[in-house]
Amino acid sequence: MYGKRLERWDKAAEWPLMGAAVLFLIAYAVQILVTATDTVRLATEVTIWVTWGIFAIDYVVRLVITENRWKWFYHHLLDLAIVALPLLRPLRLMRFLTILAIVQRGAGNVLRGKVMIYTVGATALTIVVAGLAVLDAERGNGGPIQSLGDAVWWAFVTITTVGYGDYFPVTVTGRIVAVGLMVGGIALIGVVTATLASWIVEKVSDDANKTTAATSTQVDELRGEVAELKDMIRALQVK
Amino acid sequence: MYGKRLERWDKAAEWPLMGAAVLFLIAYAVQILVTATDTVRLATEVTIWVTWGIFAIDYVVRLVITENRWKWFYHHLLDLAIVALPLLRPLRLMRFLTILAIVQRGAGNVLRGKVMIYTVGATALTIVVAGLAVLDAERGNGGPIQSLGDAVWWAFVTITTVGYGDYFPVTVTGRIVAVGLMVGGIALIGVVTATLASWIVEKVSDDANKTTAATSTQVDELRGEVAELKDMIRALQVK
Amino acid sequence: MYGKRLERWDKAAEWPLMGAAVLFLIAYAVQILVTATDTVRLATEVTIWVTWGIFAIDYVVRLVITENRWKWFYHHLLDLAIVALPLLRPLRLMRFLTILAIVQRGAGNVLRGKVMIYTVGATALTIVVAGLAVLDAERGNGGPIQSLGDAVWWAFVTITTVGYGDYFPVTVTGRIVAVGLMVGGIALIGVVTATLASWIVEKVSDDANKTTAATSTQVDELRGEVAELKDMIRALQVK
Amino acid sequence: MYGKRLERWDKAAEWPLMGAAVLFLIAYAVQILVTATDTVRLATEVTIWVTWGIFAIDYVVRLVITENRWKWFYHHLLDLAIVALPLLRPLRLMRFLTILAIVQRGAGNVLRGKVMIYTVGATALTIVVAGLAVLDAERGNGGPIQSLGDAVWWAFVTITTVGYGDYFPVTVTGRIVAVGLMVGGIALIGVVTATLASWIVEKVSDDANKTTAATSTQVDELRGEVAELKDMIRALQVK
Repeated sequence: MYGKRLERWDKAAEWPLMGAAVLFLIAYAVQILVTATDTVRLATEVTIWVTWGIFAIDYVVRLVITENRWKWFYHHLLDLAIVALPLLRPLRLMRFLTILAIVQRGAGNVLRGKVMIYTVGATALTIVVAGLAVLDAERGNGGPIQSLGDAVWWAFVTITTVGYGDYFPVTVTGRIVAVGLMVGGIALIGVVTATLASWIVEKVSDDANKTTAATSTQVDELRGEVAELKDMIRALQVK
Repeated sequence: MYGKRLERWDKAAEWPLMGAAVLFLIAYAVQILVTATDTVRLATEVTIWVTWGIFAIDYVVRLVITENRWKWFYHHLLDLAIVALPLLRPLRLMRFLTILAIVQRGAGNVLRGKVMIYTVGATALTIVVAGLAVLDAERGNGGPIQSLGDAVWWAFVTITTVGYGDYFPVTVTGRIVAVGLMVGGIALIGVVTATLASWIVEKVSDDANKTTAATSTQVDELRGEVAELKDMIRALQVK
Repeated sequence: MYGKRLERWDKAAEWPLMGAAVLFLIAYAVQILVTATDTVRLATEVTIWVTWGIFAIDYVVRLVITENRWKWFYHHLLDLAIVALPLLRPLRLMRFLTILAIVQRGAGNVLRGKVMIYTVGATALTIVVAGLAVLDAERGNGGPIQSLGDAVWWAFVTITTVGYGDYFPVTVTGRIVAVGLMVGGIALIGVVTATLASWIVEKVSDDANKTTAATSTQVDELRGEVAELKDMIRALQVK
Repeated sequence: MYGKRLERWDKAAEWPLMGAAVLFLIAYAVQILVTATDTVRLATEVTIWVTWGIFAIDYVVRLVITENRWKWFYHHLLDLAIVALPLLRPLRLMRFLTILAIVQRGAGNVLRGKVMIYTVGATALTIVVAGLAVLDAERGNGGPIQSLGDAVWWAFVTITTVGYGDYFPVTVTGRIVAVGLMVGGIALIGVVTATLASWIVEKVSDDANKTTAATSTQVDELRGEVAELKDMIRALQVK
């Protein structure tokens, strides 16, 4: 759609981007979980900025090599937002969306199996990152979430919309993360249901279709008979 | 369906009605959030009544200029209720439904993209208005919801059906607002799932359709052969 | 399917059964909400048994006048259970299922609009009855649910799967009612989503079908051309 | 697909495996609910290992008698995990998955009715087993879940995603069981909705299909007319 060069780039960039994403996640987790010495803090901060830089470069390259540049730009405004917004410190977590976007690019064509694999992967990633983010926001602010275990447990309870209320965020940042998780939960239920529905609908309509709709085979057989007719008339003409 | 004049009116009235809706929301929010002096109270009260008046006029005009008046009236009984009921003071909040109805009118034709945009817009609006309404009802009544931040957080927790239970309404009005939000939540899950399902079903059945059902192209080709047959017989007749 | 006589009976019995259902609900509510004198207790108890008797008679009559009696019996085992089980005192509430079954019979053919109306009606009824039943079970047992308002609020919070946890049942009977409500909630989400999905799928596939599948019109036009062919050959034969 | 011998084995093994599954469940329940003497402990431990042995033998036999051994192995990696992992003591509960897998094998062909029956059965089984497992993990660890009744009630509240928060697990094992239940709950909502959706879509599209798509009957009639044409031309040739 946007030329062969973009396709080649997407293929070539897939694994380096994945690597950058994994590095970003590790640095992000270290920052939250390890009591940081100056060296560690510097190393993680550098890693986070370098990986973000890789994502930014990827965006720019894709913009440059695409064929319908304006159309691509218009259809990828979200990509721009995902890359540009995390420059603002409080939106740092939006870099996580970069990762989801890259994972989805890797998922390629959307068929049922791939939708499911992407859903499982994205959900697991979201739970871990949301757990880290909420822990970062809540720790030392008097709320009930004070350890990584509790934070991940809370993320599960939230994304499945169960919501016991044994743990909940009390800070504004924590609540924004929670809202993201809840929206993810609604989407999760939606994807699971939709995939199952498409599967059941197909199973059921398979049987139905066989008996009711005019099939290609039928029409082809009809065509065969019309061809015979032609031959018969040709024979008449020869006479 | 109900004549060109109604269509023209709908188009012309769209932006003024949006403006009135925004004014109504601002006045409603000011009434709840600002400690009102007499002037402020008067100004907001007047704004609320004037904007409601605009909605009422819109209803009457549409009723007058439509072609099948009785049919239109019968199919728009809900519109009548939405316009007429808020005259009763405790049902004041129903004016919010006027706004949702107008937003939906603006959304026009229902295709997947538009369904999604309308869903996001209506959900955001509902959360804000429900937050304001529940704060208005609960503040000073001993329940846990006492600030706008808490109220909006509670609205998110409720509409996604997570329901931690860290905040919940204790007054009758607050609970009625909550029930509205919960019903909205069910509808939200429904719309998200349904839109995803329709998208997946379409993706999957696209491939299936290509191979099984008799296509227009096939039938057209058959028709071409029958046309050739005719020419051959015409040739016979000339002989 | 089971003969004209059964159809006629179903039509004739619809309103009397509805009346009996309403009477049953009133008597059930009075029993729980009014501090009963001996007269009231007797009156409600008699009403409950008489209305149950009407449901039982309806079952027997339908069994007798149907044409394929065994087939009908086999396919309506659930009806038998619903009528027979409430004879056991602790299963008294199952009579409520009789009402739902009758409402559904009244709903007749299942199309989208009717599914929605039935869903709204059944949900409202379920919430009220569950509220009454849980109040009956919990009152005076130390749990948080002690008034009808709280019980109905709790029923809403439960059926929408929000589950704040401000109110919850603590008795076994109350919890069984709650499980029924939760199952109803899952079904409710399912029906809402499914109806929306069917509507969106239809909207979307309408456009798709117009352009791809071989339509009746096309095949009919083809048939017209074949008929012309016949006339041409008939003319040849006359020559 | 994998040969007649595997089909015969599946049929023959169905009931013995069900028996082993029931025995396993009983032994598992006894271990948790009965204050064990040495004899009881030994008996249940032996039963659990023997039933697991039966599942393991079933796996090995199926692997041996199948025709496309590697293909079967590759497509049943999950079965291997389910059989092999419970050897590790903390994953003991995964044996429960063996049972679900066997129940599903018994369910055979997937049509709507069977999907529903399997869903109800699997949900009931999951609730009981999760209740037992969470009780086992939580009892004596200071959390609120301390009796079987509370544990089963908690399982219902969790799988329906209601999540009151009156009971919740506090141990890591208990929380892992809870996450399993929540995932089951999402799947449950998905299956219920999808089955309903497929049913409604079918009902609605039945009517639509009758009027729009070219039916087999139409095409067959057309073929009849073409056959008549042939006869007419044959008559011409004879002349």
